[in-house]
Amino acid sequence: MDIEQPTPFRAFRDFRWDEVACLPYKEDGAAPFKAISRQVLFAEPQLGCEWRYFEMAAGGYSTLERHEHMHAVMILRGRGLCLVGETVRPVQAFDLVTIPSWTWHQFRATEGEPLGFLCMVNALRDRPQLPTEQDLAALKANPTIAAFLTQA
Amino acid sequence: MDIEQPTPFRAFRDFRWDEVACLPYKEDGAAPFKAISRQVLFAEPQLGCEWRYFEMAAGGYSTLERHEHMHAVMILRGRGLCLVGETVRPVQAFDLVTIPSWTWHQFRATEGEPLGFLCMVNALRDRPQLPTEQDLAALKANPTIAAFLTQA
Repeated sequence: MDIEQPTPFRAFRDFRWDEVACLPYKEDGAAPFKAISRQVLFAEPQLGCEWRYFEMAAGGYSTLERHEHMHAVMILRGRGLCLVGETVRPVQAFDLVTIPSWTWHQFRATEGEPLGFLCMVNALRDRPQLPTEQDLAALKANPTIAAFLTQA
Repeated sequence: MDIEQPTPFRAFRDFRWDEVACLPYKEDGAAPFKAISRQVLFAEPQLGCEWRYFEMAAGGYSTLERHEHMHAVMILRGRGLCLVGETVRPVQAFDLVTIPSWTWHQFRATEGEPLGFLCMVNALRDRPQLPTEQDLAALKANPTIAAFLTQA
């Protein structure tokens, strides 16, 4: 028996779960982000994937980044804005977001309330890439993206 | 570009999602179940996992089964009862359930309302095993499980 396996039933209470630690969003602070936490709900090796919950306080945002691996996302709490590639879209509870390979993406809690989302990801994945100054300039050439990136 | 990939944003409405088909629970009717549907939210090969949503109408239930692969579950809608191994537990929205390898499990919408849950599973997995008459007798030797198995 794998002693790493969680107990079968873990209750939910106010966007926390029994036995699940509320962690910093990233292990280091080299990438820009604001007011966001991470909870790892499932990470058993035999699943092949990890299932995490990220939550931003009002005004918070995830890192603007891209990578080879894809993300499968479901909004779980609140409302906000999401950038995927060239598109900025309002999102709200239970909406689905697919982040394809090598696509710039960011979530922002723009509506004066927390924004929380579930994210499923392959356990074997590459490290995220941050935008260079040139990448940022190219993104900001799109006025919708420029406005999104400066929203609090 | 993989034309199988869903569009980045798929909106939620009343426990259905844009572009997501509402399917029969199983492809064949050899296993017992009642009033339950399946929606596949994410199944891109590069994820390594599939992310599905199953929903039972009031009085419905999933198949009582076990298998080598594990399930990672989050209740998304309503309340009901869940059997995992020797334990029957009330579950409600956002609770987590871990189904370990070779563990009998079943969900039942016992509270006069629908019960819906998200289930993450490895894309490569074995077929479920149904209980034999002997397995059922052994399960029903536990009065709590016997009562659970006859609940509507």
